[in-house]
Amino acid sequence: MAVNLSTPNPADLRPVAGVRLGVAEAGIRKANRRDLTLIELAPGSRVAGVFTRNRFCAAPVQVCKAHLDGNDIRALVINTGIANAGTGEGGLAAARETCAATAQRFGIAAQQVLPFSTGVILEPLPVERLVAGLPAAQADLRADGWFDAAHAIMTTDTLAKAVSRTVEVGGRQVTITGMSKGAGMIKPNMATMLGFIACDAALAQPLLERLVREAADESFNSITVDGDTSTNDSFILIATGQAGNAEIVDAAGADWEALRAAVIDVAVRLAQAIVRDGEGATKFMSIVVEGGAQREECRKVAYAVAHSPLVKTAFFASDPNLGRILAAIGYAGIDDLDVNALKVWLGNPDESVMVAEHGGRAASYVEAAGARIMAHSELSVRIDLGRGQAAATVWTCDFSYDYVKINADYRS
Amino acid sequence: MAVNLSTPNPADLRPVAGVRLGVAEAGIRKANRRDLTLIELAPGSRVAGVFTRNRFCAAPVQVCKAHLDGNDIRALVINTGIANAGTGEGGLAAARETCAATAQRFGIAAQQVLPFSTGVILEPLPVERLVAGLPAAQADLRADGWFDAAHAIMTTDTLAKAVSRTVEVGGRQVTITGMSKGAGMIKPNMATMLGFIACDAALAQPLLERLVREAADESFNSITVDGDTSTNDSFILIATGQAGNAEIVDAAGADWEALRAAVIDVAVRLAQAIVRDGEGATKFMSIVVEGGAQREECRKVAYAVAHSPLVKTAFFASDPNLGRILAAIGYAGIDDLDVNALKVWLGNPDESVMVAEHGGRAASYVEAAGARIMAHSELSVRIDLGRGQAAATVWTCDFSYDYVKINADYRS
Repeated sequence: MAVNLSTPNPADLRPVAGVRLGVAEAGIRKANRRDLTLIELAPGSRVAGVFTRNRFCAAPVQVCKAHLDGNDIRALVINTGIANAGTGEGGLAAARETCAATAQRFGIAAQQVLPFSTGVILEPLPVERLVAGLPAAQADLRADGWFDAAHAIMTTDTLAKAVSRTVEVGGRQVTITGMSKGAGMIKPNMATMLGFIACDAALAQPLLERLVREAADESFNSITVDGDTSTNDSFILIATGQAGNAEIVDAAGADWEALRAAVIDVAVRLAQAIVRDGEGATKFMSIVVEGGAQREECRKVAYAVAHSPLVKTAFFASDPNLGRILAAIGYAGIDDLDVNALKVWLGNPDESVMVAEHGGRAASYVEAAGARIMAHSELSVRIDLGRGQAAATVWTCDFSYDYVKINADYRS
Repeated sequence: MAVNLSTPNPADLRPVAGVRLGVAEAGIRKANRRDLTLIELAPGSRVAGVFTRNRFCAAPVQVCKAHLDGNDIRALVINTGIANAGTGEGGLAAARETCAATAQRFGIAAQQVLPFSTGVILEPLPVERLVAGLPAAQADLRADGWFDAAHAIMTTDTLAKAVSRTVEVGGRQVTITGMSKGAGMIKPNMATMLGFIACDAALAQPLLERLVREAADESFNSITVDGDTSTNDSFILIATGQAGNAEIVDAAGADWEALRAAVIDVAVRLAQAIVRDGEGATKFMSIVVEGGAQREECRKVAYAVAHSPLVKTAFFASDPNLGRILAAIGYAGIDDLDVNALKVWLGNPDESVMVAEHGGRAASYVEAAGARIMAHSELSVRIDLGRGQAAATVWTCDFSYDYVKINADYRS
């Protein structure tokens, strides 16, 4: 059951001028399931992406990277069921064939198509079924297709994840709509995570590429469910340029700042939604680390806490087990950490309580306060390292019986 | 339920000349539980230890390190229930008081006592109860006390862990007996892991210190249950010098090699026993990584596979999910890993099957073979990185419903 997440309201998902989406049942791995999504982009759209750093990078990721070098992307094809990862030369051929077949239908070049796959690894992609599903997906293309597309890209997700917002940029209203899918295997450098955000702003290509990296860093690269990074993670940012704003070419201006903040806001909400729908999640946890010498050490501490199975099972049990949190901070790899300078707070949206200082439990802390805080499903662990001014936040969820159940049963 | 592990036969645990052990019920955290162990060493015994690298290193660990600097150790005191970690100055005072009270009973100096604690973190150690239990533990001292002591140091362990063996060194029979406790929070640089090995060999102090490090590296630092390293991990090696062998002073000789191999054998069996009794374990897994450029990168890959919750839940489900194994290898942090050079085998004691090569599933592999192998409770994943001659092995267990249950309920 997802933590404080619900299906988006279709009416809240605004079309982005220049983007149409369509879905189909292609029977990639199971029948009677929408498992194929097409996204069509108007001419002149700009696209940028960031991808998994896993050395077993899936075939579609390799093809995406190659095709993005040329840009002028006009279509995206997304299938679920089969990840087309660890499939060798045959997998690359299948991804290329997917692009070629899509290109043929749209009258464009194969290099103008980006392929995405998510699902079981090491199984061959039944490319003939995928291709056979393309006409139905193409016939389904429509500007208000975000809601259906957000459903069609789901794997173990229990809820679709999609967000829209508008922002004024250079006197024009810009619309930003995005969708994402998780849910397990989520970690810093992304996971079986797909994220697609489109806006109708006009934005120079170098700034689009900068924004996709900055947005990933603040959102999809700051979440973790189980610490595993997948072979297929991809985050794509699209700017169709149809909003009518003067093209943003300068990162110093107010237009850039406004657009940047709004895109990051959408990315963060999509990333948090993945954690909220983490496999078996019952708690949503923000791990906020402050007072670090550099951002990187703050991230190390935040991830050590967020990855600890002992911390995650304690949170599942609503147990304010400070010892496990402190132990995780202690092994995070900061060799010269002064545990006496450290302060730790536990919090929920209603209150925050200091639980540790001077190398042990805070004198003012009583377990009843910890238990009261942990009764909430939205929790924060705030850690002040007392070493400097840097900070980092990581979002994660707890570890439950259902995590084991879902992942032990996933292929059956 | 532990994996292929049973309670040691008391008759198999040989006394080590110069070592006596006694246990008592001190009511440290719960009543009617043997929670206090004393180990008395004859004069002239030599002691060396390695300890957790967690920055939140527990009070008794700090005291142990200080006392080992002086050596001439004559007694060890071990309590369960409370870890005396994250307890600040009060915790240090409690550990020192434990040593002082023990020293007084034995007529030795407090600096000749090593204290050990394991259990709940951040709670104050009720030192007065511990001290009140000392007379009973002292009265219980006996050379054949290993069996009871191995039980008295248990926390979430389901079975006691103790091993004996003999080896001929310089024409004399040397006896080596050891005990350990786990069970969760176990990882490279040790965890809520206590290990004590005593032998009656005569061994120079510098070689004893070398041997404790080498044995730890091959055993306790090559296991993982959940990746968490605790605040209290300690591994102690004792040489009483009463076997009558000529003191080993040279690491080049046959005496050293014989003793070294036997001590490491005992340490490996004690370390593996911790994994076999890992919280909720149903499978014992050896992750063998070969063909690495250096040992360190082999360990990185082995730990990435061993720590992956997705791999561990798949093994719990007896699912030969190669994709998760390959994904873990891919994110282990070897940036220039050539996935096409990689080979992976799955095995059990009866057979071994190549499952991956050329960046994907091995052409010869059929799922039925994988399923047949996974039906066993003793499993191996062998990975050839195809980059060099280095190798490393890590032992771990699977992740089950019971892991979550045990760790969600531990404090209740």
